[in-house]
Amino acid sequence: MTSVDLNADMGESFGPWVMGQDAALLEVVTSANVACGMHAGDPDVMARTMEVARAQGVGIGAHPGFADLQGFGRRRMHLPEATLRHLVQYQLGAALGIARAVGAEVRHLKLHGALANMASEDEALAEVCYGSALEVAPEIIVMILAATAQQRAVERLGCLWAGEIFADRAYNADATLVDRALPGAVIHDPEHAAARIVRMVRAGAILPEEGEAIPAAVDTICLHGDGATALEIARAVRAALVEAGIAVRAFEGRRGSI
Amino acid sequence: MTSVDLNADMGESFGPWVMGQDAALLEVVTSANVACGMHAGDPDVMARTMEVARAQGVGIGAHPGFADLQGFGRRRMHLPEATLRHLVQYQLGAALGIARAVGAEVRHLKLHGALANMASEDEALAEVCYGSALEVAPEIIVMILAATAQQRAVERLGCLWAGEIFADRAYNADATLVDRALPGAVIHDPEHAAARIVRMVRAGAILPEEGEAIPAAVDTICLHGDGATALEIARAVRAALVEAGIAVRAFEGRRGSI
Amino acid sequence: MTSVDLNADMGESFGPWVMGQDAALLEVVTSANVACGMHAGDPDVMARTMEVARAQGVGIGAHPGFADLQGFGRRRMHLPEATLRHLVQYQLGAALGIARAVGAEVRHLKLHGALANMASEDEALAEVCYGSALEVAPEIIVMILAATAQQRAVERLGCLWAGEIFADRAYNADATLVDRALPGAVIHDPEHAAARIVRMVRAGAILPEEGEAIPAAVDTICLHGDGATALEIARAVRAALVEAGIAVRAFEGRRGSI
Amino acid sequence: MTSVDLNADMGESFGPWVMGQDAALLEVVTSANVACGMHAGDPDVMARTMEVARAQGVGIGAHPGFADLQGFGRRRMHLPEATLRHLVQYQLGAALGIARAVGAEVRHLKLHGALANMASEDEALAEVCYGSALEVAPEIIVMILAATAQQRAVERLGCLWAGEIFADRAYNADATLVDRALPGAVIHDPEHAAARIVRMVRAGAILPEEGEAIPAAVDTICLHGDGATALEIARAVRAALVEAGIAVRAFEGRRGSI
Repeated sequence: MTSVDLNADMGESFGPWVMGQDAALLEVVTSANVACGMHAGDPDVMARTMEVARAQGVGIGAHPGFADLQGFGRRRMHLPEATLRHLVQYQLGAALGIARAVGAEVRHLKLHGALANMASEDEALAEVCYGSALEVAPEIIVMILAATAQQRAVERLGCLWAGEIFADRAYNADATLVDRALPGAVIHDPEHAAARIVRMVRAGAILPEEGEAIPAAVDTICLHGDGATALEIARAVRAALVEAGIAVRAFEGRRGSI
Repeated sequence: MTSVDLNADMGESFGPWVMGQDAALLEVVTSANVACGMHAGDPDVMARTMEVARAQGVGIGAHPGFADLQGFGRRRMHLPEATLRHLVQYQLGAALGIARAVGAEVRHLKLHGALANMASEDEALAEVCYGSALEVAPEIIVMILAATAQQRAVERLGCLWAGEIFADRAYNADATLVDRALPGAVIHDPEHAAARIVRMVRAGAILPEEGEAIPAAVDTICLHGDGATALEIARAVRAALVEAGIAVRAFEGRRGSI
Repeated sequence: MTSVDLNADMGESFGPWVMGQDAALLEVVTSANVACGMHAGDPDVMARTMEVARAQGVGIGAHPGFADLQGFGRRRMHLPEATLRHLVQYQLGAALGIARAVGAEVRHLKLHGALANMASEDEALAEVCYGSALEVAPEIIVMILAATAQQRAVERLGCLWAGEIFADRAYNADATLVDRALPGAVIHDPEHAAARIVRMVRAGAILPEEGEAIPAAVDTICLHGDGATALEIARAVRAALVEAGIAVRAFEGRRGSI
Repeated sequence: MTSVDLNADMGESFGPWVMGQDAALLEVVTSANVACGMHAGDPDVMARTMEVARAQGVGIGAHPGFADLQGFGRRRMHLPEATLRHLVQYQLGAALGIARAVGAEVRHLKLHGALANMASEDEALAEVCYGSALEVAPEIIVMILAATAQQRAVERLGCLWAGEIFADRAYNADATLVDRALPGAVIHDPEHAAARIVRMVRAGAILPEEGEAIPAAVDTICLHGDGATALEIARAVRAALVEAGIAVRAFEGRRGSI
């Protein structure tokens, strides 16, 4: 039986500031990417988020980003390699510590924001980030953007990984995302998004707007909790997958090339 | 053969700012309390410090404090219990992560600054801090200020612990420290400090300036790296212990009451 | 004609995190207390908030607090006097800078959170905070909690000041606030809150739940933007004041004792 | 009589961490660039530094940088234009506030670290930074790296400015700095540095290692307080200038093109 994971970023509140709709999303997803206190989240938010995820059987991931709270980790920073390594290791370690305290497990790791964007373009940088995480947790499953430099990095590293595609973003023929400035780049219609994801999961491929199917590791679907229709899309995707007879469950991770 | 541990706070540099004389101290101590990035230290400093400690066979401890960099964790903050728990767990987790990455082990935990002072006066607060750390690392050895509320907390918790006394501070008859404002409160003479420590280790007791010996868990001696004579005192203490036939080595931890 | 000011805390968003309902509140209040980037707010939020306040003719105040973002400035910190002085001066200076850049003026200063609470109990601490602000802006109007140590401090300093009472908090016979744990401590009914404020403004006095009227400097009413009925209360208070023939406008400040 | 200013970065300590040799440098320079709490410095350090500078008659400048303490403002960050503006205005405002409190004046502004590097390459970015500062303090003197995009920005803005050259860096024929990786790029010999600066000040030109003199606004010489010979170079430069009959005093600022 075909199966797929649904993931979303969570635990992005900070102190008294609330972000996202974690409670609602945790009823939809099977993997939660939990912010680690540098670009969002704080130790209290981390613990709270992991407790609920654990209670609902949602897989927990560490979601490290740049130490830039005001910029929410979305501003590119140029760090020395050693600093990058330790930045990831520190945040992953903190996530592991909080998880253990609440009786949970950190199963996966996903990079956040500008760090993720840079890693999707720069295989060497991706390898530094993932390699340093593996030094802390050798069996962690690295969640990567399918068909990007992130994927090439995990293939080289030989670690467990899971490929991710977007529920609400159109793809170009070369598997890159359609520029947000272009019409149709972001999908707002839940029905459309859901039907498209079912097709991609069945095909085991990214289906670009134009051009041929691109065989891909479609292990997990990235959902969002912000934006007017995000939650609707998330629910529609899950419902459509279930209706199509596709099991929605946390990934186990794969190794090597696709 | 009697043995004792020598410990010092380390890894208190931050970014380009250097603090302390870690390299010199690491040749004297057998346990290093490594700052965890909240009151001092950053992920790079932590990694560097742990690497050197590991290479020299010095035991590594997590040294969490308040998230107050400007105040170096020395300003009292009043946090909710849950926040305290997660603050300690986050920092300990981060330390465990960095340690694993450099092939080292975090053997012990010691509270820093104002958090340590508050815990030495308030058994409930100490129990919150230590108990939360034990949820992350059940076999960690908790380093406590001998004969304070910190000690009562570890006795209650039933965890592994090690008692600490100061090389350079005079004690009152009730085992509290002589007020810094009083003459003789801080010991500056290396010879005097060293001879006094040898006596206390041999006696297994705190020897106050006036009054009777107070049996105590003299498992480790707190040394400093700052101040004009700190390093001299550290070296003198070590030399005097060795000369007195006392083994200087990392503690193994004890359980229960003394 | 009797007049009174309405004030509220604003500009408490941070980076991508939104807090409060500033746009709605700015249509009700005549003075905005703008967070200065330490416990809330960032330079972008400050500029945005001040621009709108200026455009709507709302008086702008600097609202400094402890440098504790996670705790939103609500956790007590014990700082040396010089550090307190510079903390206030830094934040006030920053507010003055941003205000000048957007063509606005900083008319008043109000302490935030735990710093305000400490200053309402401790006249010396209040005097340090206000005195240091006056060194930066000698003509600034200091907004103080009426009938607290804050008021005694401004009376001693001889500076311009404005007295504040709460729209939604019941008072004891000694002018302190009724403990939040007691029934009736927080007023949730807009009609009740509004009628009560009209009576207090007319009386020039705090009217406790029990006991006699306490003559007070009722220069400004503190409104809130959070909580289920806060905005409703704010609007009801303003409407009732206008209906009662009381002018709602920014305070000019007073000097000396009441 | 020819005159020139000597400037150095100062106030770069943070909390308990000491950086630089401010006291010694303040006896050499005529302008101090004071860090504003984002990449270095804190409100206490700012106040202390400005007090000493004022007492010694040294001109005070605001020295804003990226909000990146761990990276000391030396890591490039890509910020939206509005964020850049407010970042500069916030820091300048804070410096103005602290200065007023200690009875001092902020005469000039100099960008720090990566922000300065970016501004020396990108005239539009330089204009954003300087233009936003001028909105806060229209008469401030902008210190710019001579013959870079920074200079073109102040020429366009029509503001007061002062041109800066380096005491310890060799120049290429196009007025750029010789790459640090090349031999001779950094000048370590005090006598050599001093003689070279005297020649450049007299010539009113940058004298590259090879090629012709480049007429330049040689208004101020950048000195350093770190490195083995920095202080020696600083003192040698001052002594040589005095001996050469060149007045060493704070710049008054110039307007327009050179």
